[in-house]
Amino acid sequence: MYLTQTLHNSVQRSPNAVMTTTAAGRRRTANQIADRVGHLAGGLHSLGVGTGDTVAVLSANSDRYHEALLAIPWAGAVINPVNTRWNITEIAYSLTESTTSTMLVDDTFVTLAPELLSRCGSLRNVVHMSESPSARGSELIDYEDLLAAAPAVDDARRGGDDILGVFYTGGTTGAPKGVLLSHDNVLTSSLGSLASGHFLTQEGTVLHSAPLFHLGGFGCWTAAMIAGSSHVFLPAFAPEAVFEAIAAHQVTDALLVPTMLQILLDSPHFAEARLGSLRSILYSGSPMPRALLDRVQRAFPDVGLTQAYGMTELGPVATLLSPRDHADPAARESAGRVAPHTELRIVDPAGHEVGHGDLGEIVVRGDNVMVGYLDKPEETAAVLDEGWMHTGDIGYLDDNGYLFVVDRLKDMIITGGENVYSAEVENVLTQHPSVSQSAVIALPHPKWGETVHAVIVLEPGVKVTDQALQTWCRGHIASYKVPRSFDFVTTLPLSAAGKVVKAQLRHLYNDDPHVGPSSITPTSGKQGA
Amino acid sequence: MYLTQTLHNSVQRSPNAVMTTTAAGRRRTANQIADRVGHLAGGLHSLGVGTGDTVAVLSANSDRYHEALLAIPWAGAVINPVNTRWNITEIAYSLTESTTSTMLVDDTFVTLAPELLSRCGSLRNVVHMSESPSARGSELIDYEDLLAAAPAVDDARRGGDDILGVFYTGGTTGAPKGVLLSHDNVLTSSLGSLASGHFLTQEGTVLHSAPLFHLGGFGCWTAAMIAGSSHVFLPAFAPEAVFEAIAAHQVTDALLVPTMLQILLDSPHFAEARLGSLRSILYSGSPMPRALLDRVQRAFPDVGLTQAYGMTELGPVATLLSPRDHADPAARESAGRVAPHTELRIVDPAGHEVGHGDLGEIVVRGDNVMVGYLDKPEETAAVLDEGWMHTGDIGYLDDNGYLFVVDRLKDMIITGGENVYSAEVENVLTQHPSVSQSAVIALPHPKWGETVHAVIVLEPGVKVTDQALQTWCRGHIASYKVPRSFDFVTTLPLSAAGKVVKAQLRHLYNDDPHVGPSSITPTSGKQGA
Repeated sequence: MYLTQTLHNSVQRSPNAVMTTTAAGRRRTANQIADRVGHLAGGLHSLGVGTGDTVAVLSANSDRYHEALLAIPWAGAVINPVNTRWNITEIAYSLTESTTSTMLVDDTFVTLAPELLSRCGSLRNVVHMSESPSARGSELIDYEDLLAAAPAVDDARRGGDDILGVFYTGGTTGAPKGVLLSHDNVLTSSLGSLASGHFLTQEGTVLHSAPLFHLGGFGCWTAAMIAGSSHVFLPAFAPEAVFEAIAAHQVTDALLVPTMLQILLDSPHFAEARLGSLRSILYSGSPMPRALLDRVQRAFPDVGLTQAYGMTELGPVATLLSPRDHADPAARESAGRVAPHTELRIVDPAGHEVGHGDLGEIVVRGDNVMVGYLDKPEETAAVLDEGWMHTGDIGYLDDNGYLFVVDRLKDMIITGGENVYSAEVENVLTQHPSVSQSAVIALPHPKWGETVHAVIVLEPGVKVTDQALQTWCRGHIASYKVPRSFDFVTTLPLSAAGKVVKAQLRHLYNDDPHVGPSSITPTSGKQGA
Repeated sequence: MYLTQTLHNSVQRSPNAVMTTTAAGRRRTANQIADRVGHLAGGLHSLGVGTGDTVAVLSANSDRYHEALLAIPWAGAVINPVNTRWNITEIAYSLTESTTSTMLVDDTFVTLAPELLSRCGSLRNVVHMSESPSARGSELIDYEDLLAAAPAVDDARRGGDDILGVFYTGGTTGAPKGVLLSHDNVLTSSLGSLASGHFLTQEGTVLHSAPLFHLGGFGCWTAAMIAGSSHVFLPAFAPEAVFEAIAAHQVTDALLVPTMLQILLDSPHFAEARLGSLRSILYSGSPMPRALLDRVQRAFPDVGLTQAYGMTELGPVATLLSPRDHADPAARESAGRVAPHTELRIVDPAGHEVGHGDLGEIVVRGDNVMVGYLDKPEETAAVLDEGWMHTGDIGYLDDNGYLFVVDRLKDMIITGGENVYSAEVENVLTQHPSVSQSAVIALPHPKWGETVHAVIVLEPGVKVTDQALQTWCRGHIASYKVPRSFDFVTTLPLSAAGKVVKAQLRHLYNDDPHVGPSSITPTSGKQGA
């Protein structure tokens, strides 16, 4: 399959139906989008973008983001959807590593353009998706001018094993990694998820409030493209905007991370919101606290809930918890069962499958598994073994194939739907002159799911405040990665090999709700400040 | 994807759930099936079946057919599901051409085994799927003995572009053609059809009364395997058996060709049948007469109807008419809209896309399109052009992408769900010493959809009866291909190039309900006897 096929089919099925709607009320039909996509692809060609070149999008969700995601493969190029929450150092790193030649940027992020142009040698063109012509800068190419000037070109029809995009994630070893996903990788995940049959229809309207640069939001968008749904774009998540969009556009489907659901339910406007059009809510991106799931089920009794578990490297979906599963008290504690497009096993360290109920690493195989990490053959080889993607997550399967995720080998924190790799934060902390050792772990949090917590061993005789360390971190990494809390200790629990035993550290803080039939021995007493 | 992946997933999700049920009441769980499939694959290895070898199944629908369809790819081999309605000459041709080494045959068709063994040089082993050990013949290998003797082997995990099966269809030029379909071809069609979301669920039970050797029945089976449904097998279609199976096993989904629906509705037992468990009926295989569709909709007001249009070469699904479409008076006259996994166009003879409402040939592209015809590179090249499969059907798309099929370039008749190519029947007729020319066309029929009708020009001065020609045909082709009626004429309408103008001939007989905005000029007067 190839992504732009979905646009051709939409034009055939419903040429004059509204395909995109923005929060500001701009609507475009499938015919109009196809026309604009052809011209935008022509514009990219006129800028020298060729087959296999990488084009970045640094933008809040919008109908133009939608056009760009279609026009880039239409032009034969590779999508690089930039995480807008990253700081400029991180963004510059990803643009440079992916040799991005052209970047599309909206009004919110256009201020970053000059510095990115100067820092990234590969970056030659910045196209400004401006809402107001007066904001045009001299260095920048106006998006609408580009469309108007360029002739429409034929669809390059990239597809199958061709790379669709490079999707950056935080790295376990510090540096971000570009996950290379083919058209088949992403479309297999989307088609398989749709085949479960619980969300996204041709007659429906989907709300994109989760960012499109995350593969969760992106995969929901591709699935909606396959289904032929109408798309409503919110530039940022805010409860009032969500309520208004659902009511105004009769939204039927929405992807929300647990934190977003919490914020919606906590909003003083929830009670009066007109949400009767909603048919399904897809949630993913972090563990769903049981109390929050109870609230969501009570608040949306007529809405089908589907949980997806996966990761960028999996296109992203591996398992699904169906609306029917949500009515089963045991099943709803799980991450669901394997999706129809893929295979999942629990394996021991030697790679052998373990029995039902036994803990092991979650591995996944199928056409949805990534091609590899960009320019990182060793990291790729470390996680891909005979087609099996080693997720780094620890879990078990019950007798009916429900997956319970109990821990993360990769030591990742998920806060408000964003992945934070502890190693990356620890690397920044230990570069601070006062810090001798650091260990970064998740603390459970009622709103964000988890927050970033740092346990620090200082250099002898020095003192430093939480605020000073936070300021230091902000200079190096995105603010969502900066520890929200600190403890200062004299020693960290170390293994025989001299590595920090994170599991032990976490048990000192957490009454971990995710631990299943594990046999981790609890230790007594809380270390630290 | 690969077909046996669906079995692994079923074992993980519901190891002890009933996976197969026969009309006689035999039930097997997913665990049992997986165990038996591993042993059957081991048994095939013990017979010398290797990677890429072809294994035929000549059998009515049964749980053993189900096991064979999984065990053959599990063993690394290619499936050849034999049309049980063919005569022995046709079967021998297909076994020989596909170099089938091993054939599985049930009690109904075991009597054909000795002659097939003597006529087909490639055929070395016949495995008898006998229900009663006493029926074992000396030349034959008993199915249960084979399973019991062989150790279970690991899944060969054939998939992706590997050939899943060779599916024989009647040939436009006379000889049958083996359609080579890869795992991705068939599974893409099934996954895409499931993604439309109207039928087959993990909680559901599907009735297989349409034969598994047709790609319609086979594709419904693979889709049900992906969905994780439970399977009920009927060896033959009979209304009482269908009613009993639906009631006894709480069947939720069924694939039925229009002729089957007609027979069910006409049955004196329909009124008392307990069909309340049915949720969806999928129909395909021939045009659905409007009056019959009216009756079906009235008879099953709470059942979602889905029509599929396609062909063996398309894995098989190209378009789907959804339950919602059935409520639209205009849409329900069509064959539905393009399925999410593929692309469809209407083109002129030069291959250029025509406008909405204009007639042209229906062409389809996507991962569902066949690899090609076995050992027929010219026939393959004649229908595959830059990935587009030329269906030979003539139709048009309306403004909302609904496909209306109005004629068949390939001059095919569909009678009771079976395809009959006119050329094949004409070839047999003109070999009769008394026949000078023949033209075979479809006549509309209330029960069979269409019947085979022959218009004959005899040699000068000879006479021959309908019965004599029917007997002659039966000696060469399957009985469903034999003309049901004849007309004897002095001349056939010929084109300037000397070819019979079938369209003109059909108009003499038919008040064709499928002709849409066509502009075929009607001629006056009925030729013939």
